[in-house]
Amino acid sequence: MPELHLKKKIGVLGASGYTGAELLRLLLAHPLADIVLLTAERRAGQEMRNVFPQFSPYSLPRLAGLADVDWSAAGLDLAFCALPHATTQKVIRQLLTAAPDTRVVDLSADFRLSDPAAYARWYGHEHHAPALQKEAAYGLTELNRDAIKQARLIANPGCYTTCAQLPLIPLLRAKAIDPDEIVIDAKSGMTGAGRAAKEEMLFSEVSEGIHAYGVGHHRHMAELDQEFSKAAGRAVVVSFTPHLIPMNRGILSTIYVRGRGDISAQRLHTMLAETYANEPFVHVLPFQEMPQTRHVRGSNLTFIGVAKDRVPGRAIIGAALDNLTKGASGQAVQNMNLLLGFPETLGLEQIALFP
Amino acid sequence: MPELHLKKKIGVLGASGYTGAELLRLLLAHPLADIVLLTAERRAGQEMRNVFPQFSPYSLPRLAGLADVDWSAAGLDLAFCALPHATTQKVIRQLLTAAPDTRVVDLSADFRLSDPAAYARWYGHEHHAPALQKEAAYGLTELNRDAIKQARLIANPGCYTTCAQLPLIPLLRAKAIDPDEIVIDAKSGMTGAGRAAKEEMLFSEVSEGIHAYGVGHHRHMAELDQEFSKAAGRAVVVSFTPHLIPMNRGILSTIYVRGRGDISAQRLHTMLAETYANEPFVHVLPFQEMPQTRHVRGSNLTFIGVAKDRVPGRAIIGAALDNLTKGASGQAVQNMNLLLGFPETLGLEQIALFP
Amino acid sequence: MPELHLKKKIGVLGASGYTGAELLRLLLAHPLADIVLLTAERRAGQEMRNVFPQFSPYSLPRLAGLADVDWSAAGLDLAFCALPHATTQKVIRQLLTAAPDTRVVDLSADFRLSDPAAYARWYGHEHHAPALQKEAAYGLTELNRDAIKQARLIANPGCYTTCAQLPLIPLLRAKAIDPDEIVIDAKSGMTGAGRAAKEEMLFSEVSEGIHAYGVGHHRHMAELDQEFSKAAGRAVVVSFTPHLIPMNRGILSTIYVRGRGDISAQRLHTMLAETYANEPFVHVLPFQEMPQTRHVRGSNLTFIGVAKDRVPGRAIIGAALDNLTKGASGQAVQNMNLLLGFPETLGLEQIALFP
Amino acid sequence: MPELHLKKKIGVLGASGYTGAELLRLLLAHPLADIVLLTAERRAGQEMRNVFPQFSPYSLPRLAGLADVDWSAAGLDLAFCALPHATTQKVIRQLLTAAPDTRVVDLSADFRLSDPAAYARWYGHEHHAPALQKEAAYGLTELNRDAIKQARLIANPGCYTTCAQLPLIPLLRAKAIDPDEIVIDAKSGMTGAGRAAKEEMLFSEVSEGIHAYGVGHHRHMAELDQEFSKAAGRAVVVSFTPHLIPMNRGILSTIYVRGRGDISAQRLHTMLAETYANEPFVHVLPFQEMPQTRHVRGSNLTFIGVAKDRVPGRAIIGAALDNLTKGASGQAVQNMNLLLGFPETLGLEQIALFP
Repeated sequence: MPELHLKKKIGVLGASGYTGAELLRLLLAHPLADIVLLTAERRAGQEMRNVFPQFSPYSLPRLAGLADVDWSAAGLDLAFCALPHATTQKVIRQLLTAAPDTRVVDLSADFRLSDPAAYARWYGHEHHAPALQKEAAYGLTELNRDAIKQARLIANPGCYTTCAQLPLIPLLRAKAIDPDEIVIDAKSGMTGAGRAAKEEMLFSEVSEGIHAYGVGHHRHMAELDQEFSKAAGRAVVVSFTPHLIPMNRGILSTIYVRGRGDISAQRLHTMLAETYANEPFVHVLPFQEMPQTRHVRGSNLTFIGVAKDRVPGRAIIGAALDNLTKGASGQAVQNMNLLLGFPETLGLEQIALFP
Repeated sequence: MPELHLKKKIGVLGASGYTGAELLRLLLAHPLADIVLLTAERRAGQEMRNVFPQFSPYSLPRLAGLADVDWSAAGLDLAFCALPHATTQKVIRQLLTAAPDTRVVDLSADFRLSDPAAYARWYGHEHHAPALQKEAAYGLTELNRDAIKQARLIANPGCYTTCAQLPLIPLLRAKAIDPDEIVIDAKSGMTGAGRAAKEEMLFSEVSEGIHAYGVGHHRHMAELDQEFSKAAGRAVVVSFTPHLIPMNRGILSTIYVRGRGDISAQRLHTMLAETYANEPFVHVLPFQEMPQTRHVRGSNLTFIGVAKDRVPGRAIIGAALDNLTKGASGQAVQNMNLLLGFPETLGLEQIALFP
Repeated sequence: MPELHLKKKIGVLGASGYTGAELLRLLLAHPLADIVLLTAERRAGQEMRNVFPQFSPYSLPRLAGLADVDWSAAGLDLAFCALPHATTQKVIRQLLTAAPDTRVVDLSADFRLSDPAAYARWYGHEHHAPALQKEAAYGLTELNRDAIKQARLIANPGCYTTCAQLPLIPLLRAKAIDPDEIVIDAKSGMTGAGRAAKEEMLFSEVSEGIHAYGVGHHRHMAELDQEFSKAAGRAVVVSFTPHLIPMNRGILSTIYVRGRGDISAQRLHTMLAETYANEPFVHVLPFQEMPQTRHVRGSNLTFIGVAKDRVPGRAIIGAALDNLTKGASGQAVQNMNLLLGFPETLGLEQIALFP
Repeated sequence: MPELHLKKKIGVLGASGYTGAELLRLLLAHPLADIVLLTAERRAGQEMRNVFPQFSPYSLPRLAGLADVDWSAAGLDLAFCALPHATTQKVIRQLLTAAPDTRVVDLSADFRLSDPAAYARWYGHEHHAPALQKEAAYGLTELNRDAIKQARLIANPGCYTTCAQLPLIPLLRAKAIDPDEIVIDAKSGMTGAGRAAKEEMLFSEVSEGIHAYGVGHHRHMAELDQEFSKAAGRAVVVSFTPHLIPMNRGILSTIYVRGRGDISAQRLHTMLAETYANEPFVHVLPFQEMPQTRHVRGSNLTFIGVAKDRVPGRAIIGAALDNLTKGASGQAVQNMNLLLGFPETLGLEQIALFP
């Protein structure tokens, strides 16, 4: 009997942040992933258990510094890149130059904008790897599956944008909603802000309260503009306001839309239900039911709900996902499965942890 | 030297719920309030310390049942009514019949709708005290101060509606925003749901997550419709979606509006800043700053912020208050101060408890 | 090639509580469990998705009422029993009478006390199934594995007691600590209190605070007395105080002990490390390191730490587990694996969900 | 009619931390405090509203740097010193040299140890102001009131130590408990860890979990040793283990003691109830009732409970306070009131904020 799948050699660059830890949580339970390389600049030389004690019982490679890695010798089948903004472009260029057969799933925002001009406008400088920027496939799996399968470099989408695009892109593509009347009120758990020690992220600063931030100028908007405009076939600028919620995981997007012509909320629901009927990781709730982030916590699922607004002609769409799983590392593993020819759901069968 | 103020005799009907406890927190520290009557049906005969242990060190009347109260003999100067929906109308009618000189601040929704037909439509039955319904003054202090001073019965506004009306009514009155394009995305702490033991309010059900509820059909909408229509001078129906947040206190309203004509976000900010310049309990932040609920926790303040949206012509307004204080019991005490001729801020000087 | 394992038919009695949901979370991902029966008295006739929306995407049997189950026809290989105290004994007796080959893992306290007199003393009435009480094996897997494998009925241990027994029983058996000087200060997340709607379990009652409860008279003490006395070979009564913590999952036991003779804290650490060296679900941290509940959340692991106290001769032992997993449903599945001849870790490989 | 009290000039050194903010919360509502000086090194030149937005509506002095303060010209009646460990001794020496009539309440640990040798042993260096170290009065108000009134410099006690000393010192003084068998299991909210940006204090690191820290070697132990030994009249070393709880405010001490001779738990309760019968800020609950931190949140109160342990001869004592109020800034204001001849409770009448 032929062995259908051999284990593949996987590296995680930037393993000491939250998306790095989430990758390890998923990869350690993945039957075909062999974790052979972990890097973390400030923690180089340490064991993963010193950085995240939940990994104490598991055998994992010691954390390396990027400068000490020989990409060619490493022979990685796939590298996850969870590095900070400034570093990413340079490291991936070096990696792919030295080891052109390695596949890369990049969890940063660095390769998400395909237009060099848009990149320069939003980030204030030219892209450091413009050729790769062109090559990268946008990793919103359900809506870009074919391109992902062919690609060498995947720009894994942001958590906010995944949670807004999964419900909205099918409706924009179908010209079912007015692109000029979209309001996205997004709420995120604290892990979305990362693990860097900042005063405003201390427990006592963020527990027992809620606030909006980045009003009018959040960088995720560039990614939304690009993908929504592509879907609508013309320029789309949406209103998007993120909020921080005193919880660890989860994003909820409450989206206010107006149907075009006489397209009702119920019709919008049907369109989304049909689009995702066979998708293992997108679940559309019955009409008028709204999703809760807690019901997808730790899973790779997105729950979507559609309800009628009391204002005639308008609908309210809710979408909930776990920002570290479907919003980052889970979708990254989903993309890995596509890139390496594994079943798409492999290692991602975790049921949500509720309560 | 004449004694300017004598202590007044105050009763709290329904002292075992959260708004009841919040009334006591404020009244115990109020220099001119003499708490002479407390009622609580299911806890009648018990001490307040059995219901809320934080009151253990204080001397308070034993909890009575409503049936045992002789309103005339009680001689209350003012009664706060924090009773459930069904009971309120009957009790207040009896109270005011037996003791017509007592002032009443009602914290329920029962007297907020002035139109009997609207009441019947939203609540499914005729009002039980239609004469009082007509007599009641709507208790949004800053925007209805004169009427409140003259009234015998105050319909204290809801927490969600206070948090939406304070920023929106001045703009609607000035015809500065389009009344057909208002989206209110509201987020509330859990005390807004009350103290009744319900599965969906258990800690493990609501911590570590967020969800919308009552989408499209929340009863607070009746109150919003009435007041917004009055302010705009024509029928206004807004989109309003409440969410539950894993925190105890606080409401944040994120409000999406479009300026009329060429009225900019900055102009809207100026209008609100001018409206509330001399108000002790409404504070407008500098343009482009957004409020956080934690910075008003336990205080009677509302913080309002206005920012430019990236969608041309639109603005984002944030309003934050403590749902138990300015959203309920604090505003009730503010109204009490007006009714009894006290300085409006008396007993309400608490600074927010942060962190 | 012979098929080594066939799927087994599994039932969950009492699926609408937290331990029921946790069983489903684990069993849905278990490769050899076929969930064929779910019961829930108050929710009979409903779908599991109405009770716990996280199961919406999965196909599961509709919830039945116990009275409608024909145990013989059901042909269960194993039933998990997560029923309330009063009901359990009667239901298990009926089940095992009608279907004597079914194995039962009972998650209630009903069969944990093997002495009928102790049971009557703690619960105030005679046991309703005294023969089964005698037959039941105590399900603390690591310390009673052989008896469990032979048994038909397993009394799955309590969450508090598992978290106290795993560190203490090896030390008591070895006579390494003074049985008269044991103080267990235990801290539990809110799911340990179950899903019944009680005022004192509401979010607003338990968030942002901590308190001890059941001081001096918690029922878990009977189970501790029994097992500790068995281990020490003489009567042991420990001081045990549980506290409620504003978090969903997790128990931390901080245990204060005195070594016998000249047995040091370091020696106690070595004894525990050796005892659990080959156990997949008990992990002893390096000497002087203390466990955190968050690092075992959602996993079946127990982390144990031992440190020197500054009081000469004394040591501090910390033990952390997830009360719903190793403290209830995870250990129940671990016992199922033993009973049905599966590998003990099957379906229990989940890494902790942190952050 | 003579004016009994004139407003006094108050300074807060180190106003940008949590104890600084808590001092301002209390002082702004204090009728006789005139806040004339605020310092904060890293935020010098900014307004308090930039550091803590809850103070936006209030008029306060701009934050100064310590180097810019002329102590003599400032003419402070009293300075609160909430500076970090290294700085405190030097600043207070300079202040008292330049302005010898200013009273100082120091919230750091720098003057709490009266023995220079003990200080050097615990902190690893000689004290920088040994004369002042001798002069300082220990500020546990209820138990050292007379010395405080006479002093110029108060060493305000730590939060953990206040919460352990209030219940234990009266019992040690009366020789009612065995000093060699005291176990203090302490649980603190996150504000106790301060506002410095550290990874281990991030929301996502500390929410949804609990852990012990500083096991066996916490610096608060020096202060406990000193005061307990003084009370007992001989050397006392207690077992003390602090834990971090996912909440903002509150400390709960669960204390395990053994009565001497035949002194019962009930007798210990009576002794504490009598000791504190007339104290406005220490409240002893009825026998067998245990305190909850949430019931003292934001107030200056300590709640104490005593219960019988099931182990013969032993008792369990619980004490709860708000670490920022009675555990730090509230007690500091209480001491200020004594030093300036104000009524001891002035400005400290806030009722706990629950829920």
